[in-house]
Order: sequence, then C-alpha cells, then structure tokens
Amino acid sequence: MSASRSYNGGMVEALKQQIFRSGGRGAGDARPLKMTPGWAATAEGSVLIEVGHTKVLCNATVDNGVPGWLRNSGRGWVTAEYGMLPRATLTRTAREAEKGKIGGRTHEIQRLIGRSLRSVVDMKALGERTVTLDCDVLQADGGTRTAAITGACVALAIALDKLVAAGTLKASPIREMVAATSVGVVDGDVLLDLAYEEDSRADVDMNVVMTASGGLVETQATAEHDTYSRAQLNEMLDIAEKGIQVLLAAQLDCLKAAR
Amino acid sequence: MSASRSYNGGMVEALKQQIFRSGGRGAGDARPLKMTPGWAATAEGSVLIEVGHTKVLCNATVDNGVPGWLRNSGRGWVTAEYGMLPRATLTRTAREAEKGKIGGRTHEIQRLIGRSLRSVVDMKALGERTVTLDCDVLQADGGTRTAAITGACVALAIALDKLVAAGTLKASPIREMVAATSVGVVDGDVLLDLAYEEDSRADVDMNVVMTASGGLVETQATAEHDTYSRAQLNEMLDIAEKGIQVLLAAQLDCLKAAR
Amino acid sequence: MSASRSYNGGMVEALKQQIFRSGGRGAGDARPLKMTPGWAATAEGSVLIEVGHTKVLCNATVDNGVPGWLRNSGRGWVTAEYGMLPRATLTRTAREAEKGKIGGRTHEIQRLIGRSLRSVVDMKALGERTVTLDCDVLQADGGTRTAAITGACVALAIALDKLVAAGTLKASPIREMVAATSVGVVDGDVLLDLAYEEDSRADVDMNVVMTASGGLVETQATAEHDTYSRAQLNEMLDIAEKGIQVLLAAQLDCLKAAR
Amino acid sequence: MSASRSYNGGMVEALKQQIFRSGGRGAGDARPLKMTPGWAATAEGSVLIEVGHTKVLCNATVDNGVPGWLRNSGRGWVTAEYGMLPRATLTRTAREAEKGKIGGRTHEIQRLIGRSLRSVVDMKALGERTVTLDCDVLQADGGTRTAAITGACVALAIALDKLVAAGTLKASPIREMVAATSVGVVDGDVLLDLAYEEDSRADVDMNVVMTASGGLVETQATAEHDTYSRAQLNEMLDIAEKGIQVLLAAQLDCLKAAR
Amino acid sequence: MSASRSYNGGMVEALKQQIFRSGGRGAGDARPLKMTPGWAATAEGSVLIEVGHTKVLCNATVDNGVPGWLRNSGRGWVTAEYGMLPRATLTRTAREAEKGKIGGRTHEIQRLIGRSLRSVVDMKALGERTVTLDCDVLQADGGTRTAAITGACVALAIALDKLVAAGTLKASPIREMVAATSVGVVDGDVLLDLAYEEDSRADVDMNVVMTASGGLVETQATAEHDTYSRAQLNEMLDIAEKGIQVLLAAQLDCLKAAR
Amino acid sequence: MSASRSYNGGMVEALKQQIFRSGGRGAGDARPLKMTPGWAATAEGSVLIEVGHTKVLCNATVDNGVPGWLRNSGRGWVTAEYGMLPRATLTRTAREAEKGKIGGRTHEIQRLIGRSLRSVVDMKALGERTVTLDCDVLQADGGTRTAAITGACVALAIALDKLVAAGTLKASPIREMVAATSVGVVDGDVLLDLAYEEDSRADVDMNVVMTASGGLVETQATAEHDTYSRAQLNEMLDIAEKGIQVLLAAQLDCLKAAR
Repeated sequence: MSASRSYNGGMVEALKQQIFRSGGRGAGDARPLKMTPGWAATAEGSVLIEVGHTKVLCNATVDNGVPGWLRNSGRGWVTAEYGMLPRATLTRTAREAEKGKIGGRTHEIQRLIGRSLRSVVDMKALGERTVTLDCDVLQADGGTRTAAITGACVALAIALDKLVAAGTLKASPIREMVAATSVGVVDGDVLLDLAYEEDSRADVDMNVVMTASGGLVETQATAEHDTYSRAQLNEMLDIAEKGIQVLLAAQLDCLKAAR
Repeated sequence: MSASRSYNGGMVEALKQQIFRSGGRGAGDARPLKMTPGWAATAEGSVLIEVGHTKVLCNATVDNGVPGWLRNSGRGWVTAEYGMLPRATLTRTAREAEKGKIGGRTHEIQRLIGRSLRSVVDMKALGERTVTLDCDVLQADGGTRTAAITGACVALAIALDKLVAAGTLKASPIREMVAATSVGVVDGDVLLDLAYEEDSRADVDMNVVMTASGGLVETQATAEHDTYSRAQLNEMLDIAEKGIQVLLAAQLDCLKAAR
Repeated sequence: MSASRSYNGGMVEALKQQIFRSGGRGAGDARPLKMTPGWAATAEGSVLIEVGHTKVLCNATVDNGVPGWLRNSGRGWVTAEYGMLPRATLTRTAREAEKGKIGGRTHEIQRLIGRSLRSVVDMKALGERTVTLDCDVLQADGGTRTAAITGACVALAIALDKLVAAGTLKASPIREMVAATSVGVVDGDVLLDLAYEEDSRADVDMNVVMTASGGLVETQATAEHDTYSRAQLNEMLDIAEKGIQVLLAAQLDCLKAAR
Repeated sequence: MSASRSYNGGMVEALKQQIFRSGGRGAGDARPLKMTPGWAATAEGSVLIEVGHTKVLCNATVDNGVPGWLRNSGRGWVTAEYGMLPRATLTRTAREAEKGKIGGRTHEIQRLIGRSLRSVVDMKALGERTVTLDCDVLQADGGTRTAAITGACVALAIALDKLVAAGTLKASPIREMVAATSVGVVDGDVLLDLAYEEDSRADVDMNVVMTASGGLVETQATAEHDTYSRAQLNEMLDIAEKGIQVLLAAQLDCLKAAR
Repeated sequence: MSASRSYNGGMVEALKQQIFRSGGRGAGDARPLKMTPGWAATAEGSVLIEVGHTKVLCNATVDNGVPGWLRNSGRGWVTAEYGMLPRATLTRTAREAEKGKIGGRTHEIQRLIGRSLRSVVDMKALGERTVTLDCDVLQADGGTRTAAITGACVALAIALDKLVAAGTLKASPIREMVAATSVGVVDGDVLLDLAYEEDSRADVDMNVVMTASGGLVETQATAEHDTYSRAQLNEMLDIAEKGIQVLLAAQLDCLKAAR
Repeated sequence: MSASRSYNGGMVEALKQQIFRSGGRGAGDARPLKMTPGWAATAEGSVLIEVGHTKVLCNATVDNGVPGWLRNSGRGWVTAEYGMLPRATLTRTAREAEKGKIGGRTHEIQRLIGRSLRSVVDMKALGERTVTLDCDVLQADGGTRTAAITGACVALAIALDKLVAAGTLKASPIREMVAATSVGVVDGDVLLDLAYEEDSRADVDMNVVMTASGGLVETQATAEHDTYSRAQLNEMLDIAEKGIQVLLAAQLDCLKAAR
C-alpha cells in the first residue's frame, strides 16, 4: 500500500518537526551521539549507536575460516551485512526477505561498510578468521551507513579484544579506529551530519570515512539535483574531518567502557 | 561456517549458565517480564517486550485498504511478519533476505501471530484497514513466538487507540487482550515459560494463546522425543493459564503507561 | 485469473452438495476410508489414501546418508514433503514451482508430517539412513494433512519392511503406528473428520496425531472465528481419539495386504 | 543424495526387467494404453492416461479472460503446465518448487504440449477464454510428453463439451483431435513407443504430433549418440503415423465414454 | 512498458522494410553471412557470426573437470549458454538476470545448441574437460539459434586447436563440423533462412542441424497456424540441406583464417 | 570451476603483457579511445565505446510513461542497466541470469550510471518519458563503469535528437554532456585511466564524473590497501579533470558523426 494512503501522515509531520535543525545547532554541529557497548548479550562484540533519532545495532561475529579465495593464505577477512527493520522508517518498508532479494541500496551500503573496516585491520595478524559485522537499523533518520561504520568499528574492536583476552591473538589486529559522517549542501550551505529531512533536500550529499591518523578511506560526493565545484568539495571535506574527530573520541570512550 | 568451528563456544556456555532455572524460580514461575511502550518513535504502535533474555520489538503499521479478497466487504485485516536478527542467537544465523526465501519456521510463526491477534479484533469495527505487526527478535532465549504475540497485542492496541484519538474510529475494535506463553515437560516435570536451553531438552513443548476472558485461541502441544498423555496435557494447560494471567495484567499496565 | 471469473462455478456447487454431511453420517462418524498399497510401482513404499473425496499419494524413499548435523551420529532421519496438484482443488491453484517458492501453509504441513512420523521411529535402529515421505494431494476435500500422516506412516512401514526383507535391517525401526484426524466445532457441534465445506464454516479446527498405544504426538486446536473452552477441547479430543482408533485398524489391514 | 547411494538399486533392476520389450511386442507395437475420463472429480475435464507403466493425469481448467496480448482480440488461448511427482521415477527427483525454479526440460515440454493443442483449436470460436491443461506425471516410464499431449487433448475436449452443454458455446472449438507418440532407433532398429530403458539406449529419439486428418504438427528427431539419415527419418515417420492412428481411435472411445 | 506505448514504432517499420526478401533473393537463397574469428580477445575461441541483421557472439571456454555424473569416466562434456542483450530486439526485452530466472525459450535454445555440438565431439578424446559455449545475441533478426550453432562450432574448433597447439591434446576431438539453418512455409512457399518478419508470418517453421558428412542431428518442424504434409517436410529438408552446405564451407574458411 | 584449474592461464599472461603501460604512455595519458555510433541498428540510440581493450555497448530505449512515483508529475526519468558477457573477462564469470540474482557490484554500477546521466537532463523538458540505457560489457579490461557513463551519454543524446527530429520534443532535454574516467595511485604514482592489471595493484582507486562546464557529479575515491591524503585526492582530481576534457571532445565528434 502506498505511503499516501497511510494513516500516519500526521505522525510523519510531527517527527519531521522534531528533527528540524533548530535551537542552536549550527552548520558544523553534529547531532547528539550515544554508543552503548554490549547491547546484545549474544554477540562477541555489540554496540547500539544512536546519532540523533537514528539507531543502529552493530554486532560482530568471529568465525574460524575464511572465504575460498583466501584459504591457506594466512590472511583473515572482515565483511558486513546491513539491514533495516520494516518500521525503522516513518512509512513501512517491505522486508527484503519477503521480496526474496537484497536491493541495490543495501548491497552498496554493506560493501562500503566492509571496505571501510578492512582498511584498518591487519589481515595477517588476524589470521584465517572471518569477522562479520551485522549492522541493523532499528530506527532511521538519515546517516545510517555512516553510523553503521562508526558503531561497527567499535563492535569489531570489542570482539578482537576478546580474542586477545582469550589468548588466541597476541595483540588486536586493528591498527587504528575508523569513523564516518555525512555532510551536504542544503540551500547553498554546507551542513554536517544530515538528518533524513535535510538529506532529502540536499543538492550534494557526501560520505567521508577517515581513520584516527587522518588518512582518508572513502570520499563519495554525489550531486543529487545540481553539480558541485572543487571549492565546495574542499569545504565539505573540511567540515567532515572536524565532525569525524568527535566520533573518534567517542569511540575510544565507548571502548574504555567496554573493557 | 558451522557453529562447531566458531570462536564463541566459551560464550555460549557462559550464557547458558546465566539462564539456568536456578535461585528460586519454581516450575510454575515465569521469567522476569518487561514491556516498554513507544520504543520505536517511527511506528504507530511500538512495544519492546523482554521475557528473560528474549527481546522482541513489536511495531504496528496501520494502512488504509485491505487485501484483494476483502475489498468492498467493509471488513479489516490484521497480519504479522516475524524476523530475527542474525546475532539474536548465540551462533549467527544467516539472514533470510540473503538466502532469498522465508523459511518454514518463520512462516509458521507469523501465521500463528496473525491468527492469534485476529481472534480478538472486530473486523467490521476496524473497517477496510490493514494492521501489520512486525515482530523482530533482537535477542533470543526461547519463547520468541509467544513473546511476540503478547507484545504485538499491546502494540496493536496502542495503534488502534490513536485511530480513536484522531476521531477516525469511535471505539477501539479490540474486544479483549490476548497473550501467550509456552510450557513444557522437561525431565518429567511440567515447567512454565521455557528458556532456550530448557526448550531444547523438553520432551513436550506447548504453546498456549488465551484471551482475557479465558477463551482459548490456540493450543499446540508437540512431542519432541516422546508422546504425552491427556493428564499431562491438562497439567500443562493449567500451568499455562496461570502464567497467561500474569501477562494479561502486565499488558494492561503497559497500555496505561502508553496512554 | 480470479475464481469469481471462472466457468466452473456450477461445478463447485454440485461437488459441495455431494459432500454434505447427510444421509446418516453422525457427528462422530468419519468419511469412507480406503488405502491402496503399492499404488506407485516406482517407490520403495507407496500408499494412495482416500478419505471421502480427498486423495493423497504417499511415497517413501530410502536413501543412505543423513543431513549434515547427524553425520557420524549413528542415527537416521525421517522427513516429509507435501504438494498439491493445481486442480486437486475446485478452483485452480498456481503451482509453487511456477511461483518459485514454497508457501507458508505447505511448510507448516510438511513440518507437521515429518515430526509426527519421527515420533514413532527408533533413529538408532534405522541407522544413518534418510526416509523421505512425499505426500502429494491429487484431489482435495479437507483433511489433507491428517490423511497424509495416516497414509505416510503405512508407506514408511512398507519401505522399512523391505529393508528388513533385504537383510539390511534386523527389525523394523517403527516402534508403533501413528495416525491423525481432524475434528472441529461447526454451528456449536463437535464433528469428526471435517470435509472442506465444513472446515471453512468451523469455529474451531483441531488436528490430533496419536500413536497406537494412545500417546499424543500433536494436538493443535485453532479458533477461527471465536475462542473455545477447556470443555470443548476435551470433547474434541474424545471424539478424535475414537476416530483415530478406526484409522489405526485400517493401517494394519493395509500393511497386511502389502506383505 | 546421489542415486548411486540409494537403497533401491535392486528395485530399479526389477522394474527394468518388467519393461523389457519381450513376449510378442514387435518393433511397430505400442505399449498397452488406457484412458480414464473423469479421474479427478474437481476439474472441468480430466483424463488419467496410462501408456505401459507411464501414468499422466491431465486436467483442464477453463477461465474467462486471456493473457494481456490477446485482450480485446476476441480470440482465446490454450496453454499447458507439466509436472512430475518426485517418486514418479525410480530414483527420487527433487521438487522444482523446492529448487525454486522450473527446469529447462519442463519448460521445453510444456511449450510443446501447448503448441500441439493450439494447432487444433479455433481460437475465434473459443472466444476470450483460457484453457490450462495441467499434465502431472504420477509414474514415469518413458514417453511422458507424448502421453501428456494425447491425454490432454481428450481432457480439453471434455471441458469444451461442457461449455457447449451449458449453452456457453454453440459448438466445440476443437476442429479435430491431435495425438502424439515417440519412435526411435535402438541398436539399429526403428522401434515404436519407447519405454524409459529403450529411450536411454536409443541413438535417435523422435516425437511426432499428428492430427486426425493426418496433418503433422510437430516432428522432432534428435540424434543422441550418432546422426541419422533421411531414409531413417522417413522410416520413423511411417511407424509413428501408424502408432498415432491407434491413439486417435482410443481418444474417440474415451470421449464417448465421457459423454 | 508495453511495446505499443513505445516511441520507436517508426523505427520498427523502417527496419522491417530493410529486411524484406526483395531485390533478387530467391526462395532458396540465404542471407549474407559473415564470420569474424577472434572477435573477443579474452576467450579461448571466439567468433562473431552475422547472418543478415542477426549478430551472435560465440565464445568458447575450456575448463579442466567435468560435471559430477562424468567424474572418473575419462570423458569430456560440451555445453552451451544462450543470452540476448535487451536491445538486440526492436522493442526492449527485460533482462533475465533482472527477472531472476531463465525463461523457457532460452532453456530450449541452449539445450539444442549443446546437443548439436556434442554430436560431433569425441568425448573420450577430449578427456575430462568441459567446453562451455556462450552464445550472446547482440542484434536479432530471426535465426538466432541456428546462427549460434553454426558460429559456436567454429569457436569450439578454434579453442580445441589451441589445446592441440599447446600439446595438451594430440588431435582435435572434433570429428566433423556441424551447422544449422532454418526453413519455413510462408504464404505457401518454402523459404530458406527466415528473417524475423518472415518467421512471424510462417505457417511452419523448421530448424535443421546437419554435419559435414550429411548426417542429420536435429530436425524440428513446428506448425504455427496450420499443419504440414510429408511432402512439405521433404521439400523443407531438401532446401535446408543445400543451405547448410554453404554454411559448412564458410565455417572452413573462417577456421583457416583463425589458424 | 575455479580459475586455477582453467586451461587459459597462458592466455591470461599474454593479455596482461599487452596491457602493460609501456611504450610512451605517461602517467597522465589515457588509453586509445573509439566511439562507434549506431553500432546496434535496433536501438534508438547506440554507441560502442572502446577504451583500450574495454568494449561497452551502450543502447538507449525511449518509452512513454514513467515509474509510479513520477506519474502525473510532468517529469521524465533516466535509468541504466549494466551487464557483462560471461567471457568479457579472461576467466569466465557465471551469468547473473543463471545465478538468479543481480550482484552487489552490478547494482552499485547501474545506480552510478543512472545518477550521472540524470544530472544533465532537464526532466521537465523530457516530459513523462523514460529513457533506459543498457550498458553491456562485451570485453573488459578495467574502467567499464566510466566507459559506460561516457558512451551512454552519447547514446542518450542520439536518442533524444531523434525525438527532436520527429517533432516530439522542441529541443533536446540534455543540458550538457557528462563523461567519466578513473584515476588511481599505483606504486605511489597517480595514474590516469587504469587498465585491469593496474587497477588490481592500485592502493587508491577513484572514479570522477564531470560535466562539460566543469561541474562535478560524482567523486568516489576508495582506499584498497592503504589510506590517502587530501593532497593525493587533489592530485587525482587534477589529472582526472584533464582526462575528462579529452572524453568530452570525443563525445562531440561522435555525436556529429551520428547526425
């Protein structure tokens, strides 16, 4: 059934108003951030990350063994899967399990998460093990993929710490932490950490993935309705780098709480 | 990768010990119960139900319109979908979206939830609207289907209350509340509200769905390793009925908190 | 194309009249029963079971080997698959092969058949062999799942007898026979062995699976439009148990004929 | 599980011996033929055709309406679906519904059946109706596709007769009957109506579909291990034509019995 | 979107006129033929075959190993896959990958190509290797399956020549070349090598596959709107055999160019 | 069968040597470029683009009508599909149609092509029409997605020119041309237009999509084995912008040739 026929139109409006960038949040200010380690007791590493109204549960699974093309290479593998509950969104989204296939957007996001995490892991040190990061969006208000990367990196670190604690590994194979945020051009202004409503009005939407030492892992800037200039690209990168510093600090706090 | 090759063997043991029916929990005692209304801000009706270590998020969506076979009948429809996050379980379960099909167990459970809820709704009073209950297991320790029924009934009631508050309906079409629990024969004893480890050792496993007025909606008793007698069936029903009374009272408390 | 546009409306009416519970069939009377052993010459065990107008072909296949989780356990496995020809029903049902997936009802039924049969087989005595029971509905008039259980048990017994005759097994691993029937509340009366038209009007629909020694294997009572009481549940069980005695006797006759 | 691990090896041998072309069956002799009209009471037209050990149930469904590309053309459509029960064969074949897709062989056969039947139906006279012929193989011993064509033509004629009897059509839109047989070159000899074991040894395998007036509808000759000459092609056609005369006569007898 | 709503109606007419059998092409004349060896540099054997406006790229892949049922038999296998680009046709055809399944027509064609090629290969001489022929239609104007067989046989020969050149095989396992053409009855005349527009008007459509020594491999004659006589069948075969002689000569020229 | 068992290992080496960046190709030099308009006569707009050994056939289809969410908006839509022939690559890749689903990489690429083309089309001027760009890789040697964007933009322009020529539109809705290239860091050097072998060794891989007026549409820079600095990002962008100028000039030449 189409969204337009849905009862919850009024509710959509109400939530949209809650997320308005008002009351002192400046262009370079991120939304409130919260990371809860160990949210799921069942997983080796688990973090519930909340960025504004967005909530993503990141769970890490460590398995012995690697995919076929890495067997007998002595190297490990890190991969990610991404999902969204049907009512994470204001209007219900059909389950991909019900449709019988993973959509293009999901594929694109889980490939991005996997690549981002692999950039900071020493695969030789991990050995022939596979870590799978399940990133499930419980509530969505923009920036789910960047929240997933930021939260999943901590879940991964927690799980690898347990391998060290158990004596399986001598040291954690994570070289440094990695975090991500979004930035965009909305009504001509460059804004940090777009909420859903801002994102849907943005002319340019950019995701930046950066490590603690300042190395860039992924920069993806997409013009939605217009093109952008090199100057705008640089301005977006400047603001994103500042936003990511805050996320990196929060990751360390969460990791300490988990230890 | 098979569970036997997994790193988290030690963890499985640790969690199993936490859930041991020890320290004063008698055969007729249920596990600690908690229901949080409005857990997801995005859904018309939302309840996070926790039964021991089991956590199920129940979200209700109200849409105008009904499936084809009910069109122009003046009657509504209530249906359910059930899912489980990959790391809701101690060893990771592959996503059904990844496998491209819904498994038999999922089908069986979502049909049970739907039937149970339909038994207490006046479809004429609902009118040509469809309510979909998404029941997603975030953490699993046995009894997920009965927790889903109990939580989803409250999410449904909250969503229907909003239709009344909005003036769309004159009165809530729910005639009475419905709740469910499991009961089983373990080592010859009839136990209420089986946790995962107890369930896997049970000789008989029974699910009972009952309304506030004491009417039975579903009784399913399955012998896993042995058969059972009429006397055992009656004993299981007696204990289940007592357990459901507690759930029905908790539902009303949760509903009050939501209003 | 929808049923309402179909030519065969008149025919549906005609068949419905044939199946009216008239001319001396009392509330506790089952429909005429016929079991033909060896109907398919190609299968190790084969029974065509006819319960009124319902016809189910039950074929048993014995394979060496077991599913992965039982390998090297010394234990066997019994499983079932259920299908229905498109014109088993009065209006054509699309093939599941054409739709590309098994529906929820099919999954639920084949899991029930498999569990019922496993309850009477000594898996140690069977050894690492798998018996698959294919239950295909050639004509449907209600009670197909209970007819499938009753017929499949005989097909299973015939196939296992051949393993004994061939010297592969010393004795049949079937401990006792198991049979099933349906019972329901229609217009306030408890009726045995519901035909399709009765089933569609029933307030409560119950399936009972019971062994020769009187042990219960499965009892599933579902309220379709209303709830039911403990007293009604007991009345349904009483009538079902009598009905199953007749089926168990017929199974032995069929088995004798097959030997 | 592979056939080679299967228990029923001895049985395969036994059945193979039963079907040996012995005891007076000459090269031009067909196997015993039996057609039972009305086998399924649920379908508008139904015939169980038995050709030797091969048993195919052919059921006709008449629906108002036609596929999109024929809408408002005033013309009807005839189509076929083909299936095989898992134990129609001596070693079990996995269900296509379980595999989630229709195989190439099934597609090829149902397209052949549909084309063959359409060649004898006046689509203008049928009007905007669709007749679907479900041909389900209950037991297979070679020649299932040609048996399906022969039986389905009678099921189609029975269903169309009912439209005439009901006053929906003035006359049956079938212009003439159509039947089919197989013929092949085995060990250098041209044989009529190949059983499975003969077919698997054949150098050339040919299917011929012919109408009552002697018009050819389909001739498909396939070299399996060797090529064939024009002289052999002509010899196969001569024998096939004689075989089809017998089938056409039997079709008329069956049709009379049905009226 | 349906073809009737498409912009390119005018273009369809224009191309149809280009392909009219005019200006000196007699009933027994084939369309212009061109075979380019090595079109794809990436494949072991590659031929782009153009028959009139039809263009099919045939690429051969040689792998060590054979399907399960041939393992340890010492015999090889030859198989084919067939595809069509969405705009090979005048109105766009949806991708089979997008639809998630291979259609019946594709299955039928790739089975035909595979069988035709296997008829000329000595599988013992090939040894336990599999050759896969990918036949992808880049532009379609009728006769794509027969063009695929003719082109794929050359691609196969080129690939096997490389195995000989590399010393892997002593001699090419191809016993002789095989080629194919179509022939049909259009407006009462028997025509060779039907273009799309002719094919769609044909009363009978026949595909003939023949080897260099004149042996027949496949003859498939299908009546589309009417039946055909033995005399017409013979006339079609006579014309097809002449047409195939031309193709066989062109194959040898192409093979020489490749060496 | 795995690549390691494949015969064509020698061939892979040979082709790899052909594509070595040798003989005068500097870090900022692109590979030879060729665009052939009208390669497929069947499509409204068609371009075969060759970038070094990479060959992509880009075909445009114009349909009346738009996807549901744009109906009655007066706006058009441009979308893309991407495919690769099995032997476009040196070792055979299984067909997505055979696997029954579109992979993540394909989804990601076709979404990128669609977004890039939409950035230069005035959807109001296009009106409620959909243009689908099919980009099929016939031979692959790196840079297939950027070649697809560059070629598809010309195919789109050709198709829209025909709508103008036919009087359907007053002016072409393309505001300006858009083209794309890849650039990467290989062994510490920034190189333009990576071939497959270079791409597989690259530390950073970047795709840049830019319009004729110098506006950026997409910039995606991915660290494969290491991170990159802002300085490297700027250097890559500088080189990419120069490379795209050459492509934009070639597009205009191709478009002139097509008119």
